[in-house]
Amino acid sequence: MFSYKPKLKHVIEAKQFSDRKLLEEMFDRAEYMERKDKKNKLPQSLKGKRVASFFYEESTRTRFSFETAVLALGGKVVSTDKASQFSSVAKGETLEDTIRILSSYFHAIVMRHNIKGSAKIASTYSEVPIINAGDGEGEHPTQALLDVYTIKKEIGRIDDFSIAMVGDLKYGRTIHSLTYLLESHKNVKIYFVSPKTLSIPEEHIQSMIASKTQFEETENMEEALDKVDVLYMTRVQKERFPNQEEYDKVKDFYILDKDMLRKMKPEAIIMHPLPRIKEIDPKIDTDPRAAYFRQAKNGLYIRMALLDMILG
Amino acid sequence: MFSYKPKLKHVIEAKQFSDRKLLEEMFDRAEYMERKDKKNKLPQSLKGKRVASFFYEESTRTRFSFETAVLALGGKVVSTDKASQFSSVAKGETLEDTIRILSSYFHAIVMRHNIKGSAKIASTYSEVPIINAGDGEGEHPTQALLDVYTIKKEIGRIDDFSIAMVGDLKYGRTIHSLTYLLESHKNVKIYFVSPKTLSIPEEHIQSMIASKTQFEETENMEEALDKVDVLYMTRVQKERFPNQEEYDKVKDFYILDKDMLRKMKPEAIIMHPLPRIKEIDPKIDTDPRAAYFRQAKNGLYIRMALLDMILG
Amino acid sequence: MFSYKPKLKHVIEAKQFSDRKLLEEMFDRAEYMERKDKKNKLPQSLKGKRVASFFYEESTRTRFSFETAVLALGGKVVSTDKASQFSSVAKGETLEDTIRILSSYFHAIVMRHNIKGSAKIASTYSEVPIINAGDGEGEHPTQALLDVYTIKKEIGRIDDFSIAMVGDLKYGRTIHSLTYLLESHKNVKIYFVSPKTLSIPEEHIQSMIASKTQFEETENMEEALDKVDVLYMTRVQKERFPNQEEYDKVKDFYILDKDMLRKMKPEAIIMHPLPRIKEIDPKIDTDPRAAYFRQAKNGLYIRMALLDMILG
Repeated sequence: MFSYKPKLKHVIEAKQFSDRKLLEEMFDRAEYMERKDKKNKLPQSLKGKRVASFFYEESTRTRFSFETAVLALGGKVVSTDKASQFSSVAKGETLEDTIRILSSYFHAIVMRHNIKGSAKIASTYSEVPIINAGDGEGEHPTQALLDVYTIKKEIGRIDDFSIAMVGDLKYGRTIHSLTYLLESHKNVKIYFVSPKTLSIPEEHIQSMIASKTQFEETENMEEALDKVDVLYMTRVQKERFPNQEEYDKVKDFYILDKDMLRKMKPEAIIMHPLPRIKEIDPKIDTDPRAAYFRQAKNGLYIRMALLDMILG
Repeated sequence: MFSYKPKLKHVIEAKQFSDRKLLEEMFDRAEYMERKDKKNKLPQSLKGKRVASFFYEESTRTRFSFETAVLALGGKVVSTDKASQFSSVAKGETLEDTIRILSSYFHAIVMRHNIKGSAKIASTYSEVPIINAGDGEGEHPTQALLDVYTIKKEIGRIDDFSIAMVGDLKYGRTIHSLTYLLESHKNVKIYFVSPKTLSIPEEHIQSMIASKTQFEETENMEEALDKVDVLYMTRVQKERFPNQEEYDKVKDFYILDKDMLRKMKPEAIIMHPLPRIKEIDPKIDTDPRAAYFRQAKNGLYIRMALLDMILG
Repeated sequence: MFSYKPKLKHVIEAKQFSDRKLLEEMFDRAEYMERKDKKNKLPQSLKGKRVASFFYEESTRTRFSFETAVLALGGKVVSTDKASQFSSVAKGETLEDTIRILSSYFHAIVMRHNIKGSAKIASTYSEVPIINAGDGEGEHPTQALLDVYTIKKEIGRIDDFSIAMVGDLKYGRTIHSLTYLLESHKNVKIYFVSPKTLSIPEEHIQSMIASKTQFEETENMEEALDKVDVLYMTRVQKERFPNQEEYDKVKDFYILDKDMLRKMKPEAIIMHPLPRIKEIDPKIDTDPRAAYFRQAKNGLYIRMALLDMILG
């Protein structure tokens, strides 16, 4: 079926998917998985494969979609969503030792960790693929993959479009991964919309200048609203703030409601990595441009495609 | 094998099973599952089906028996027993959003929640069947099903019998579901035995009057003991009380011991949804009338039957 | 394949494996499992079997390796790593009741508990095999099995060798189980190295005298270092101490570094049940004598072998 077998071991950061051929291969497989799933005929390509689902931070959609993807393709999962309170970790074991052990039991490790860079470190000690399911304020590469996949499905192209990223651009790892990934796409214009205290980190600015990616920074969402093909809203993440006061200052900065929706292009789409709190008025959910629930569902098929490429 | 395929999507409340044909169909399947399980030949009727086990409140027997039922019939489970501390929920996501996402990954959602009515709400947002595994002080419909199934297996009939329900009738959702279900059975007499502060809620009284169900309320367990075919003991649930003091007042109100056992009919049975604390003296466990462990086991087969009817 | 089918139901304590024939049978199967796993051709001997993974204390490698073993052999697992906060347990249910219910759902129960003797108690109430995955400061019999299996693979024999056990010998259940098991081996000399406050319990001393096992006690690790074929390091377990002060007194008593390594026999091996904190300098990890990661991996195959013998 899929003759091109790309070299893919660890999945640590979004830039690994700058290769267009690799990305298209993945999207083809994701579509294939969705078609097969509807017929209840998913390939059992992970048969005999064991995957550790090792989450130091809790998660609903990421852990659930990864585990569902493994199981649906015939693989086995052993799981924890509280790795940080986990016996050996709580007892003071290093990440290195934990990963060495897990990599001797499993064929791959899906890992979420609260510290940036931890997935990279884990990969240097693991005999088996590490899949980064979020490392603190670092990256969340599979989220970027499903985001771009969603853009492709919704607006029909992954080059030649404009996108506004709104909210917490400083700590938001989905933003970081998506920004890195979009740098390899042609003629993409990014509007970064955030309060100054939550603006996109300098390393991204430098990276975009080097890759000649067009971007603008603004505090005013309305400036970008009528210009973009994709409006990517994010939650201001309470858990990244030192205290309630700092959080309260910015939490309600950007809220998309029906009035603002009117200013958007009729063929634009609204995305959100979810969970949302108040950033998007639920009244918008029924608007055809509201793509965030379809986006979440795409995550399941992208993860199936990814696991199939790595372990299948 | 089972030619009658009932329409059954969401399982929210016990009254859905007032249809005798549906109930008998389920009991036939439960017996079939038990027979097949003993031979290690359970039908793999959930093959390719994915079920979310989503528990906001912890549970042993309910979560374990549901997950066992899914797995034993060839389905897949992704599970959490701490949904309320779960990432997206803790971050402030609404139940609606959570359910929308889960329903795009899974073929059914087994849900326990701490708030009455939440399963009903969830069902309005879900594309796939919601199975209520307990919603606060609301209902626990699959418990009622296994209770009635137990009565059938133990005393040979589900009409023409008397039952005493003892303990916390106010907050006990197993009592609420069983009472609603029994209203559709012929010639059932219910003795409600509780302290006044924990008596059966008014909505049940009204419902029983409307359905012409015979009932009596009393604070004295001994009044009912020699009359009933089924003695249904319940735990006074500490977690439903505002403080220790209120709990202490009533917790030891009803305790079944060997002396009291002598007053019961020789062919009567003792049931309990478990866990028990002190309501039933363990010395009674070996009495053939002690049906509560058999009752718990029946739960596994009822849940298999239910899942088979919904997803098989 | 394996014609000798030993009688093995509950696995509670290491002395159950004093029978050499049983032990060798298990080691043969463990090697068989490892060979088959490398070819992705593990026997599906647990097909249709359901195992409860019931952990009152958290764990990484023990829970993960047991669950992996069950799943890899085609069995099903339902799991909790927080049984003590689990609904029915937190509500005050007795271990007896919990086990009775679980044993009516599952074909075996893997149980870790914080109280010594609890696995034994559980076995008296269970219709199905109880596998003790650690009971407080009591035993951890499958750890002893994988330890002896590792000794066999690493030094080629399980009789005629000397071993130093270092660290917390009072509370360390892996030490207790290994010591009991080694009593049935010929010509084994044990050096117990610990601070006086953490020395090997008197019941072990009496048992070794009765079984004529050679042993010496010392506080000085260097006394044993050049004599032994196996150096078995352990962590001083913080969670067994009443307070930080008592723990701090002894926690850094024994640390194996490169200097000390030079004093060891060139063909000796270093073992550790893991997790380690500071007892072994990571610089030693690359030394061929460092067997602890191989030891952890052996645990997976020993548990497969054990489950296969009990349930296969």
